[in-house]
Amino acid sequence: MIKVGILGATGYAGQQLVWILRNHPQSEIVFISSHSYANTQYSDIYNNYNGLLKDVCINMEEAENKLSLIDILFIALPHGKSFDIVKKALQQGVKVVDLGADYRLKSPEVYKEWYGLEHEYKEVLEEACYGLVELNREDIKNASLVANPGCYPTASALSLYPLLKHGFINPDSIIIDAKSGVTGAGRNANISNLFTECNDSVKAYGIASHRHTPEIEQMLSSACKEDITLNFTPHLVPMNRGILATCYAKLNTKISTDELKDIYKSFYKDEYFVKIIESLPETKWVRGSNLCHINLKVDGRTNRVIVVAAIDNLIKGAAGQAVQNMNLMFNLKETTGLEFISMAI
Amino acid sequence: MIKVGILGATGYAGQQLVWILRNHPQSEIVFISSHSYANTQYSDIYNNYNGLLKDVCINMEEAENKLSLIDILFIALPHGKSFDIVKKALQQGVKVVDLGADYRLKSPEVYKEWYGLEHEYKEVLEEACYGLVELNREDIKNASLVANPGCYPTASALSLYPLLKHGFINPDSIIIDAKSGVTGAGRNANISNLFTECNDSVKAYGIASHRHTPEIEQMLSSACKEDITLNFTPHLVPMNRGILATCYAKLNTKISTDELKDIYKSFYKDEYFVKIIESLPETKWVRGSNLCHINLKVDGRTNRVIVVAAIDNLIKGAAGQAVQNMNLMFNLKETTGLEFISMAI
Amino acid sequence: MIKVGILGATGYAGQQLVWILRNHPQSEIVFISSHSYANTQYSDIYNNYNGLLKDVCINMEEAENKLSLIDILFIALPHGKSFDIVKKALQQGVKVVDLGADYRLKSPEVYKEWYGLEHEYKEVLEEACYGLVELNREDIKNASLVANPGCYPTASALSLYPLLKHGFINPDSIIIDAKSGVTGAGRNANISNLFTECNDSVKAYGIASHRHTPEIEQMLSSACKEDITLNFTPHLVPMNRGILATCYAKLNTKISTDELKDIYKSFYKDEYFVKIIESLPETKWVRGSNLCHINLKVDGRTNRVIVVAAIDNLIKGAAGQAVQNMNLMFNLKETTGLEFISMAI
Amino acid sequence: MIKVGILGATGYAGQQLVWILRNHPQSEIVFISSHSYANTQYSDIYNNYNGLLKDVCINMEEAENKLSLIDILFIALPHGKSFDIVKKALQQGVKVVDLGADYRLKSPEVYKEWYGLEHEYKEVLEEACYGLVELNREDIKNASLVANPGCYPTASALSLYPLLKHGFINPDSIIIDAKSGVTGAGRNANISNLFTECNDSVKAYGIASHRHTPEIEQMLSSACKEDITLNFTPHLVPMNRGILATCYAKLNTKISTDELKDIYKSFYKDEYFVKIIESLPETKWVRGSNLCHINLKVDGRTNRVIVVAAIDNLIKGAAGQAVQNMNLMFNLKETTGLEFISMAI
Repeated sequence: MIKVGILGATGYAGQQLVWILRNHPQSEIVFISSHSYANTQYSDIYNNYNGLLKDVCINMEEAENKLSLIDILFIALPHGKSFDIVKKALQQGVKVVDLGADYRLKSPEVYKEWYGLEHEYKEVLEEACYGLVELNREDIKNASLVANPGCYPTASALSLYPLLKHGFINPDSIIIDAKSGVTGAGRNANISNLFTECNDSVKAYGIASHRHTPEIEQMLSSACKEDITLNFTPHLVPMNRGILATCYAKLNTKISTDELKDIYKSFYKDEYFVKIIESLPETKWVRGSNLCHINLKVDGRTNRVIVVAAIDNLIKGAAGQAVQNMNLMFNLKETTGLEFISMAI
Repeated sequence: MIKVGILGATGYAGQQLVWILRNHPQSEIVFISSHSYANTQYSDIYNNYNGLLKDVCINMEEAENKLSLIDILFIALPHGKSFDIVKKALQQGVKVVDLGADYRLKSPEVYKEWYGLEHEYKEVLEEACYGLVELNREDIKNASLVANPGCYPTASALSLYPLLKHGFINPDSIIIDAKSGVTGAGRNANISNLFTECNDSVKAYGIASHRHTPEIEQMLSSACKEDITLNFTPHLVPMNRGILATCYAKLNTKISTDELKDIYKSFYKDEYFVKIIESLPETKWVRGSNLCHINLKVDGRTNRVIVVAAIDNLIKGAAGQAVQNMNLMFNLKETTGLEFISMAI
Repeated sequence: MIKVGILGATGYAGQQLVWILRNHPQSEIVFISSHSYANTQYSDIYNNYNGLLKDVCINMEEAENKLSLIDILFIALPHGKSFDIVKKALQQGVKVVDLGADYRLKSPEVYKEWYGLEHEYKEVLEEACYGLVELNREDIKNASLVANPGCYPTASALSLYPLLKHGFINPDSIIIDAKSGVTGAGRNANISNLFTECNDSVKAYGIASHRHTPEIEQMLSSACKEDITLNFTPHLVPMNRGILATCYAKLNTKISTDELKDIYKSFYKDEYFVKIIESLPETKWVRGSNLCHINLKVDGRTNRVIVVAAIDNLIKGAAGQAVQNMNLMFNLKETTGLEFISMAI
Repeated sequence: MIKVGILGATGYAGQQLVWILRNHPQSEIVFISSHSYANTQYSDIYNNYNGLLKDVCINMEEAENKLSLIDILFIALPHGKSFDIVKKALQQGVKVVDLGADYRLKSPEVYKEWYGLEHEYKEVLEEACYGLVELNREDIKNASLVANPGCYPTASALSLYPLLKHGFINPDSIIIDAKSGVTGAGRNANISNLFTECNDSVKAYGIASHRHTPEIEQMLSSACKEDITLNFTPHLVPMNRGILATCYAKLNTKISTDELKDIYKSFYKDEYFVKIIESLPETKWVRGSNLCHINLKVDGRTNRVIVVAAIDNLIKGAAGQAVQNMNLMFNLKETTGLEFISMAI
């Protein structure tokens, strides 16, 4: 059994980790840690575990003291909060999957520019592995530190990577218009995320400034071996979970919808979690699963391709992908503990 | 492996059966049948199965021809539609769990009064077993035909049974005010269930006339060995799943909240699926699970007890309980394939 | 023109006051005050006023200094925060409508028991007038201080008053099961009111302990001239606005649904805002209006009557009723500025 | 008083017309007509009118017979259903505002291509006036037949017109990614619009094939005097009302966000209903109003501009704009009866 520790277990990504790992047939949760709820029984915060889980949250200091008991540490903290513990974990030979943003960007300058703080553990950035499994599988297998991708970058990169890899689109023409459920804003008490403020309304946010932009660009640049700059616009939709990414790009070749779909099917033919579907993706079909649904259409009138992808932001966009990474890092079957699907409604 | 057939597999209860049974370690789905979608691939209706389930819906006639291939038939059809097939199944030694209302009421007269049609298979009513597992476990084990309880009756009976069994309340004083998600209305195209008509609103319906009333009365009467008449009022809440039953009754003894809660804990002490919790039940904590959360409070000012129960109407209130019944009927561990819990958010 | 000041204008009841009074043909808003947003332009908080309202929020101290400029002060603050300003306003001859709870209960002891603090302006309680217009109209006309009813008490009292007035029900048998939208929880940043926590779920809260209980009891006791104790259970429903009160009581006479409905129609025959309707009330039909929809049913089986009422908690349950009170206090036509209706969807 | 008739009064746009016109100080509703609900009292369908509106729906034939009694006919029917009645109305000197799509496109060929049927009243297309008031005001004043714009085209054209008029963007670079509430799908009983199917999910639909595409292109082409082909992708969001259009285009000049915003402010400086706001548009701020909120941002990294606009699809996107057109056609102040604003929450 893989011994697991979880930091930030009461946030939305963290609670999803607990949910998945509790049922993972080859892992065992050694501790769960929470800054806000230290010393509180987990099932008092998340009543779905009532009578089923006895664990009490510990604090960061206690977590540090228990590093020797675990094989892997999952971190679901805000960026900038885990430089120390990551260092300590790695030094003790504990593998790390960080669901935060600290190890995703290769360049500490770009990190500083978009996140507004100095990176305090630059020396590890080179070896940190970007954990978008379908696009980076081999590297992950040997990684000690995996930077788990952001939710938007996961949907965006899976959507556009095949096009760039094959050189079918103009890299300068990419626009990603994404829609997210409110869990994406985290479990923080602020007025703008109240039910009453979000319900029955939709808005854009972070236009031309969202922190996932350089992460998407870095990943997609690796596909075509040139630096990409693109537009990414996130929106907040009145639903709990889900990301829908609608991606636009100019085709530089004449190709039909069917031909392109075949290329996607071929590209993802061995992937369990990526499905090229016939209908248009809806977040409900992947909600509660580690799946990514993709469909696309070529518009002959404008010679653009529109690719639409749907994921559950907390699973394939966070905790599910993190466990998928763990499976690879420990040489398990990649789908272990991740084969659950959406309840549909 | 238990061989299973499902009738009405594209309705909401039916699709939940498919969802559960697909992962049940000791069952195998032999056929799924649908009146509206015969000859359609199931994953074309429920895209959550895209690439994961190849089954094609068959029609009722084909289902009848396949009865010899199965051990148990689950029926999720409107009432009055399954008299024939139940008879045929039982005659061939196929066990039946009917999620509809046809075999719940012992009296064909009461059935006719509330459902407005003549019962066409009265002779089986005596042996049909009411499948509310926690309150009727032993009978179910040997049953060939189980009438799976309605969603409201499940929450209501689990809430009030211990009180009546112990004689703590006046049987004439019971009021059940229940709130349901919109899946309770089924997957039928009618204007009153459109998103735009239900969203951001709440209403009562079926006041003093809902068909679950005699079913609740029959079950609770069995607890106290006298005929109970009660008020039951269902409400429609803008959410997909869940039932919250708020139950009121006059205490005929002096007892504290804590004492009564201990009695409930004792009553349900061996039950995996019924949890007496400390906080007030919320449907989200049981959504997507077969659990029932219950809490109660004694109001010393009025000498009433208020019991609140929450279930997922499609699982503990339908498909989950149906599988719980199957587990009993086939001598499996009762929780087999049913240990999944809510994702919380 | 009636000169108006508003305290607490950025809370949900307060913003609804601004919305109504801005269009009231015979009132003029002199100042709007906000503790949290002093010195902020109102339209920067509520963007619906963008380009249409230039007012800047002032603080409480500035508001006090402007009392001489107004005829009436509306207060939409938490309880216990306005003893001082009410005294000052009354001393300067400014009429007051308090949307909070401080002047609703006649007994300072009951106030202390339920609100947990000493009343600091007891001497005014005698003359404070309970502003449930349809049941207390004449007193309001001459009042200087009106205690605007709570949202639940408004729906509950309008539902049950005629029954008690006519002596049709047993006063000890009353149960009120109410469902509210999330605006009822106010515009406060706490985790339990996040979109993600409320969405797709329903719960009860404050069972046998909600502060509106004694207020309802006081109002209904006045109808039958005896002290009533009752059960009141509020629930939180995932919608922004609306209260649905489902009220149960034992009839002490034999009467049909139609007869009773006629009595209600007669009781409310001159009321513009109370409609006895033929269908079952849904909050959407009154959302955004000052209307109260009521329907009822006699259950011959249990000899109980079930009365259902729907209001918009922020309008008839708060700001609309407050303006209705103002209209009376200033001898205007009662419906002035309040004839808008729900947009339905 | 302007005498008004309404066809299709029970659909969502139709009911919004009734809502607005009932309060319009200079209009009088002579008849309301409904195919599905002929001979039904309107307030039995829309209970918000209970006790306030006595009108009974008439059928199309009766409506034709009453043309002589009205000055203007509003039509809110599906496309292709009103060729006859429009002809008759115009012949009798009755002005017409058609909220459907039949008179929006100048070319009957394009109409046939996108709507799949032959236009049966081509001869009037030339004189039909496209009723996007802010961009076509003078023509509307003298029109007999106004084609009221679609909801998406209204938001899209208001967003992009100034850019094209000033020649700031490359006309080939336009992408419009729009999000709509479910009222946009109309009041039709189909399964895909059930609460349970839409709730907590988002999807794209009609990619590269939505019928509003040529309408947007026609309007924007008129701004820059060249034929525009663009991408338009609508999405369905779980909310009742509202459209958010996120529009992307490549700048062909160097200009800052502030400079461009000033140009928009100047372009719309005399418009009551179009507000260039400082925050990012959210549909809730315009829900229930005839307003359009716009903001924009220049992305220096990609040299694109992103313009975001929010409207209420049933008001500025349908009934409100229709009444705005009526006001112009009858020489009333343009804002008459349309100054109501959103209730915000």
